Amino acid sequence: VTQNIYDDPTFFSGYNQLDRSKHGLDGAPEWASLRALLPPLAGLRVLDLGCGFGWFCRYAHAQGAAHVMGLDVSENMLERARHMSERLEITYERQDLSELDLPAASTDLIYSSLAFHYIEDFTALMKNVVHALAPGGRLVFSIEHPIYMAPSQPDWQINADGIKTWPLNSYQIEGPRTTNWLANGVLKYHRTLGTTLNTLIQCGLRVTHVEEWQPSAEQLTPNPQWREELDRPMFLLIGAQLDSGRL
Amino acid sequence: VTQNIYDDPTFFSGYNQLDRSKHGLDGAPEWASLRALLPPLAGLRVLDLGCGFGWFCRYAHAQGAAHVMGLDVSENMLERARHMSERLEITYERQDLSELDLPAASTDLIYSSLAFHYIEDFTALMKNVVHALAPGGRLVFSIEHPIYMAPSQPDWQINADGIKTWPLNSYQIEGPRTTNWLANGVLKYHRTLGTTLNTLIQCGLRVTHVEEWQPSAEQLTPNPQWREELDRPMFLLIGAQLDSGRL
Repeated sequence: VTQNIYDDPTFFSGYNQLDRSKHGLDGAPEWASLRALLPPLAGLRVLDLGCGFGWFCRYAHAQGAAHVMGLDVSENMLERARHMSERLEITYERQDLSELDLPAASTDLIYSSLAFHYIEDFTALMKNVVHALAPGGRLVFSIEHPIYMAPSQPDWQINADGIKTWPLNSYQIEGPRTTNWLANGVLKYHRTLGTTLNTLIQCGLRVTHVEEWQPSAEQLTPNPQWREELDRPMFLLIGAQLDSGRL
Repeated sequence: VTQNIYDDPTFFSGYNQLDRSKHGLDGAPEWASLRALLPPLAGLRVLDLGCGFGWFCRYAHAQGAAHVMGLDVSENMLERARHMSERLEITYERQDLSELDLPAASTDLIYSSLAFHYIEDFTALMKNVVHALAPGGRLVFSIEHPIYMAPSQPDWQINADGIKTWPLNSYQIEGPRTTNWLANGVLKYHRTLGTTLNTLIQCGLRVTHVEEWQPSAEQLTPNPQWREELDRPMFLLIGAQLDSGRL
C-alpha cells in the first residue's frame, strides 16, 4: 500500500498552490519536453497512472484519444478531476499504483507524471504496465531524477570558493527517502537510473528516449532562478515502447 | 584529432603503475561487471576501441574469438600490446577513435573500456560503430560516469555535519573537462547520461543494459576504501545491440 500523502490536508493544501496545480500542464516546466515524447494521441486508448487533477486526461481527450482513463490513489485528487472533467468522456478510478488491476493489452499509451517515485516495487509496477499495453504500445513517464532524490541532505551547498554544488551521496543506496516537502514525512523511493532502465528492459520494453530535463534558454530568461537546474537534473523523462520481438 | 595523453611520458609512466596496467583485466574493479555484459566470444569477430596494452584482445583470443583487432591512438600502448601478444593472432593498428576508418558490417562485437570519454564527437563515433557492426552485432563499453566527470571541482567534500558528499554541479553543461590525473591537462568530454543513451538510440542501437558500477560486498571487504563509490558512481557500463528493425 502506497503512502497517500495527497489526502493529507497540509500536503493537499500546499499542492493546490503549485503552478502545476493552478495552471495545469503548462504550469509544469518539464511539460513541453514530456509532450515531445508522446505519439499523436488521436484514436489511442490512453491510461494516466497518478492522474491527479486530470489535466493530462483532459489534454488527451482534447487531442482525440479514443478512450481516456485516469487512476489515482487520492480521493481528493479524483474528486477534483471529476469536477473539472464534467461532460467529458473520461473515466477516473481509484487505484493504488502498487496494486494495479488492469486488463491485458488494453492500452496504447500509458502516461505518468511524477508518480512512480512513490512506488516501492518498480518491477511489479512495470510488469503491470507491460501486461496492460497492447502490441507496440508506449510508456511515457517522468519521475524525480535519482540525483535529486539520493542525497541524505538534499539542499544546495555553497563551498569556500562561493561555488554552488549539489551534495550528492548515497546514490547507490536504493530505497526509501523521507523528505519534508509541503508536509513532513513524504515517503519516496530512490532507484538508480540504471535500475530504472534495466527494469524497463527486463520487463520487455525498449527504451526510446531518456531525458534529464533542463530548462530551455527561452525558459531561463523569464525564470533566471531555474539556472540551478543546470547544475543537477531534477526530473527524469523516459519514453519506452513494448518490444515487438527479441533480437 | 584526439589528445594523445597516453604518449605523454609523465602520464604513461603513471598509467603503468595502475593495478589495471600491472594486473590486466582482473586489476580493474569494474571488469567482472563489464564481462557480464559480453556475449560468448567464441567465433565472434571482435574489435577493441582504445585497446591499450591489449589485455582485452588477449582475453577475447583466449575465449576463442574468430578474429581480434585492437585499435589505439597511442604508439606507446600499441608497442606494449604487440610485445605482450607475440605469437597470438591479434591485429593491432594505430587509429584515432575520432577518425575511425572501418569496413562495413565487419564486426560482431565492439568493445571499449574507458576510452569514449576522450572523444569529442560521440555521434560521429557511434555512426562509425554502427557502420562496422554486422546485423545483430553488439557494443559493450565503459566510460567515466557523467556524475563523476561533471563537477567543476571533482573532489569529495566533508560538510559541517561530517558527512562526505560529491559536489555535483555543471551536470547539464556538456563539453570539455580538464583534470590533472597522472599528468596535468588531461582533456575529457562530459556528456549527460541522457545524451549518451539517446545518441546510441538515434544511431540505431538498442540499449540492453545500463550499469552504474558499484563495488560488490565481496569487493568491499578487502577494499573498504571503495565504500565511497556507494555515494556516487565512477564508471558507467553500457550494453547495446544493433537494431534488427524499427518498431
